[in-house]
This record gives sequence, structure tokens and C-alpha cells, in this order.
Amino acid sequence: MSIISLTTDFGDLYPAAMKAVILGINPNVRIIDVTHSVQQAGVREGAFALYSLVPYFPQGAVHIGVVDPGVGTSRRALAVIAGSAGKEQFFVGPDNGLLIPAARRLGEMEVYEITNPDLMLKAGISATFHGRDIFAPVGAHLSKDTSIEAVGQKVSDFVDLDFGNLGIDGPFIIGEVIFADGFGNIITNVPQEIIFKFCTFGSQVQVNGRRVSFVQTYGFVGQEQPLVLIGSHGFLEIAVNKGNAALQFGLQNGDQVAIKIM
Amino acid sequence: MSIISLTTDFGDLYPAAMKAVILGINPNVRIIDVTHSVQQAGVREGAFALYSLVPYFPQGAVHIGVVDPGVGTSRRALAVIAGSAGKEQFFVGPDNGLLIPAARRLGEMEVYEITNPDLMLKAGISATFHGRDIFAPVGAHLSKDTSIEAVGQKVSDFVDLDFGNLGIDGPFIIGEVIFADGFGNIITNVPQEIIFKFCTFGSQVQVNGRRVSFVQTYGFVGQEQPLVLIGSHGFLEIAVNKGNAALQFGLQNGDQVAIKIM
Amino acid sequence: MSIISLTTDFGDLYPAAMKAVILGINPNVRIIDVTHSVQQAGVREGAFALYSLVPYFPQGAVHIGVVDPGVGTSRRALAVIAGSAGKEQFFVGPDNGLLIPAARRLGEMEVYEITNPDLMLKAGISATFHGRDIFAPVGAHLSKDTSIEAVGQKVSDFVDLDFGNLGIDGPFIIGEVIFADGFGNIITNVPQEIIFKFCTFGSQVQVNGRRVSFVQTYGFVGQEQPLVLIGSHGFLEIAVNKGNAALQFGLQNGDQVAIKIM
Repeated sequence: MSIISLTTDFGDLYPAAMKAVILGINPNVRIIDVTHSVQQAGVREGAFALYSLVPYFPQGAVHIGVVDPGVGTSRRALAVIAGSAGKEQFFVGPDNGLLIPAARRLGEMEVYEITNPDLMLKAGISATFHGRDIFAPVGAHLSKDTSIEAVGQKVSDFVDLDFGNLGIDGPFIIGEVIFADGFGNIITNVPQEIIFKFCTFGSQVQVNGRRVSFVQTYGFVGQEQPLVLIGSHGFLEIAVNKGNAALQFGLQNGDQVAIKIM
Repeated sequence: MSIISLTTDFGDLYPAAMKAVILGINPNVRIIDVTHSVQQAGVREGAFALYSLVPYFPQGAVHIGVVDPGVGTSRRALAVIAGSAGKEQFFVGPDNGLLIPAARRLGEMEVYEITNPDLMLKAGISATFHGRDIFAPVGAHLSKDTSIEAVGQKVSDFVDLDFGNLGIDGPFIIGEVIFADGFGNIITNVPQEIIFKFCTFGSQVQVNGRRVSFVQTYGFVGQEQPLVLIGSHGFLEIAVNKGNAALQFGLQNGDQVAIKIM
Repeated sequence: MSIISLTTDFGDLYPAAMKAVILGINPNVRIIDVTHSVQQAGVREGAFALYSLVPYFPQGAVHIGVVDPGVGTSRRALAVIAGSAGKEQFFVGPDNGLLIPAARRLGEMEVYEITNPDLMLKAGISATFHGRDIFAPVGAHLSKDTSIEAVGQKVSDFVDLDFGNLGIDGPFIIGEVIFADGFGNIITNVPQEIIFKFCTFGSQVQVNGRRVSFVQTYGFVGQEQPLVLIGSHGFLEIAVNKGNAALQFGLQNGDQVAIKIM
């Protein structure tokens, strides 16, 4: 029994084609939708979604990520194995950085270029839907009994990706918005390790000039009140109790966030 | 083989973490998403979603509900067993009333406080995501072979919940909007038993002053025409054939509805 | 092991009731959500969704389609078997054309009216939710061991459906918008066979008077630039690289599209 996760910007309909292909190859695999609502071509947002979830998946899980603005062009297709022996997980997707932060989080990794046509859709490869025609069948084969060496050659010049600018500037921690969830909670690229150097729960901070409490959880401030906390993903999150921080703070993906410790 | 259902206000992404944890503990359980679009902190709306569905689940189903504005505060975590012998279903979630109407609908119930750390996520408990760290693993254990007594002590002082005000006032049945579905159909808290005391199909009624036909189904009135019917959940529903009743009637969750029999 | 796919206009919540009923009858079937976001009563849009996906499903798959504005009226319920021997797939849904293009795509088909109450929900049939009460249980029985002859009599006067007007008018190919996906890509009813009679990749065409390149994939034009391509479904698609063609072209479902080859 294995698990395949799917992370795409496909919205509706197209994920079902991937699932049909997957179950046609491995009827026993379990499929988990991570998200199909990554903003179109939002490679970094998709990478964060995968990154935040991989620690919770069991050994052998195969993560198919398809945020792929370069589909049908010369960008390569990759398969990755990551994690220490006996705890490996697999990743399949385009060579644009999408898979790398999640894979690296698991420890050592090896990256392969997918070139073996025997693992791809027999009906032929479209120019626009490698999720269905390449990534789904390759992922399904990896979830069964195919070794990663079968996909193609090992490569080391894959596209890397980080979660944006991050630094200290005088009294400010300067970071970026990396993900805004459906409720307007703003996830930044500032990891808890940096925050806890300067803050303890109960501290006051300024977020882009606005005074906010740093607390453990939403319910520690009043309704409609802003707060910052360490989200379940381990990064600083800006939220509003029962409200929408993205709207209140006017922040979206990629925007700069300046945290001033007071 | 067992089934776990998920009912949350998480939107995207976070449900996948719960599913990864669940399948890591019980790889054979089947997961059904009830909804992840409950309005934020909409405990009553989530309770109705669960309530409307439990009669259709088979014996042994475990329902994890996480509409949890008090996460990380002192509110308790609960597990519930409900239904007559051989027809039991289970419920896991916060002690805010979310689980209670659905459990009670199945007949007798017993409520336990979850305190056993052996059933929780080994990696530690976050302050903001008990869905992943407590409710998912406890639900997965209950779906396998753990008895409910293992979660903790039985309690009787759990938070209860009803579906809002409901009464008769002269010629009016006074109720509330309990759920607005994605198409703008308005589900009220008025059960069919009350309606059928006063109406038969074909009756005219007034809904907040507006004349509407009480019919069996949408297609019995013209396009864009309003109607009231008994929804598949057994409650009075206000709808517009191929249209949006929430917009036409200006109604949302919690609003009062006055039904006048004519 | 079999697969059931679900295609509905139900949005949230109601699909879970169908899944609970299905797994109660056949705990081993795998369920794939095609979409639950078909526009309300959008029979042709739902038909296209099913049509575009069936080639990717394995033998034995059962497709339940419920876009059903006539639910509870006298419209019939159908079950269809389609495809050559050893490659059959099944379809269950209302007699309004929803299932027919997908079934016909697989080759020969036989259509049956569902009348056997033994295959329906034991708790009784509501007037508004045949998805849960008829189509889900019939589909679950077909996915297990029930032969299609058991559902009822064969019929030949089922409602048919096509994908709208399509023709050549002087230098114009005249078609219609058949589906707009969540990112604003416009799928027309013009099949690739017609396009390739007149165009090769790199050709310029006019779409409703606007000059656009016909290319293999999105990345062949600049950001925010429009293009036409053959989508993964085999139809002409109007798109904008990292943008929204439905907005840029002001097109929605059913609108006429005039393609002029230049």
C-alpha cells in the first residue's frame, strides 16, 4: 500500500484525469489531494504547500507536483528520491524548483531526469498536460515496484528554489509573504528559529508598522483582532481572529513583511 | 475496512495533512470529505453538515469535525460513540457542540474527553492545528482497533448545541437559516414535521412576506421562480429554480425566516 | 477493484452523501471526483467534462453523472454500458443527454432505464436528491457484481445531446464555447481534425476578430499574450499565457466563436 499526493494549479476537472491514469496503473495506491488551487504558475506557492506537508507523510509516499508554466517547452521532467534509508519519499514534477524545498527538508536527495517512455502514457504525450501524460504514470509506477533509476539519468543541474528574501535590518526582521491561505491568513518565510531569538509569547511586535501581539493561537486575542503566531508549518503567520489578515494588512503573495520587535 | 469523514473550515491544504496522518496510522481506512468550506468558526453550520449526512454512513464510520475557534485554548477535545448496538458511529472533535446534533440523531451516545497522549501525533502538539495533531490520529486509531474508552474519561458536561430559535407565532412559523449551500439554496431549521402540519404540496406560503409555492422539487416551478420544498435533509429549504435564493431573498446564515401559511 | 467517478453540479456537501451510500454498498470501490462545480443545470458542460475524461479510465469504471434540473419530475433515470467487449465502461444518471457523448466516444452502447427498486436506497427516494437515492446505489451495485440488465428495460428513445453548432462559413470556422475552466481557458467545440485541415502550428488566426497565434502550448507566447492551441481534450482552446482568456475575450459557455484562418 502506498500513497500518492497531488499538488497542482489545475483547479477542477484535470486532476481527475491524473487520478484515472494513476489508478489504471496502480489500483491499490491511495491518492491525497494536497491542493489544486495554487495560483496559476505559482511555483513558489506550490513548493511551500508541498514543503509544509511532507513531514506528515509515511515512508514511500510519492508526491506529484504540477505547477508547470513551461509545459511543452524544453524544461525537463524530474523524479526525486529524498530522505534517509527506510524513510524515503518520492517527488515527480517539472524542473522549475517546485519539488526541491520539500525534498531537501527530508534530508539527502537524488534527482533524476525522466526520459523513459515506457513509464509514460501509452496513448501519447500532449504538449499541454504532462500531469496526465508523464507525471501521473511515472508517479504511479514509482508507487508500485519501479525503482527511481528506471526513469532516466541522475542530474545535478536542476533548477533550485528558495522561499524568498529573508534578513535582519537593524530592529527589523525582513521577510516575504510565501502563502495566503483561503481564510486570509498570511504565511511568511520567517522561520520560528529566527522569531524565537527575539520574541517570546506575549511580546508585542510591529508588522509593517502596525502593532500586533505575538501569541500561541488565534483565541488569545479578541474577535477581529490581529495577531502573529508560529503556524503549524513552523513559519511566522499573520492572522486575524475570525477575520481576514490578507485584507486587513493588504498583503499578498510575494509582498515584503517587516517585523519590528518592540 | 472503515470510513473516516472530515468536516472542517480549513479550506485548502490543511486537510491533506490530516489525511497523511490518518493513512500513516490506518492505511486501509477510506476517507470522505464532507466539506472543508464551513464558514470560518461556523460551528453550527458545520454541525448541520454532519447532522445531515450521518444517516447515510455505514456502521463503524468515524466522523472527524474540526470547526474549532478555540483551538489551543482550554476547550476540551472529545470523542463520541453514538447509535444502538451494531450500528455505532464515532465522532472526534472539539468540545463546542459541533459533534452533538449528529451524534444525538443516531440515538444514545456516550461522550469521552480525549486525554491519552499515546493516541496523538508523536511529533508533538501544535497550538493551532489539533485537526492534524489530535483529531486525525485519534480518529484513525478509532477506525482501526482502539476502543473509545482508551481516549480518556467519560464526561457529561460537554457543550451542547441546537439549530437555533424555532417556534409558532400566530399564523407564522418562525425559524432561522441554518445553512446556505454553494448555489444559494437556503436551508432553514424548520423540520418537515412542522411544515406538514400546516401545508400540503401545492400550498402557497409567504417567506418573509414574499409569496412562494410549496412543491416537491425544483422543476415544479418555472426558471428563476422561487419555491420552498422539503430538502433531502428533511428541513424546509428556500430555493429558486436554476437561480440563487440567498441573493433573491437577501438571506444568510443565522437570519430569521418567517413562514406564513396562506 | 473498480472505480466510480462522480460528475455533478452539487458543489459542496451533497457529494459526501453519495460517497457514504456508495461505500456502504461497495466498500472496495475507488471514488474519483471529476467535478462538482458544473454550473447549475449545465448539462452540456457536465457532458463535456465526462466526455473529455473517459478515454483515461480503465475497463469497468462506472461514471455517475448528476446534472439534473429535472430531478423529481417524470424524466427517466438511465444506466449505460459502452465500449467494445473487455473494455466496457458504465454510466449512470438522468435521461437528459448528460451521459451520451462520453458513452458514444467509447464505441457501441446500450441504454437501460433504471426501474428496479432493489438497487435504490432502502430508506426511500427523495424528490430532490436522486444522486444519493438512485444514482449512487445503482452505480455502486454496477461496480460490484450486478449486471446492467438488472436495472430495468433497454430503451432506444433516450435524450441525445451534441456539443452545439459547428460549421464552416466562407473563411470562418464557426463554433461555440463548450467549457470554461477555472483559469479562464476557453474550450470550444471545434475538434482538432477540423483545425488541422486549415492550420499548422505557427499559423495566425483571428478569434472573433482578434489576431492570435496557433501554437503547441502556452509557453510559446509571452506572458499575458493570447493563443489558441489544441487542448489535451482534443478541441480548440483559447487561452492567455498566465492570464484569463474568458475575461480577455469576453466569452462564456455557449457563446459563438468565429475562427478565421489568415
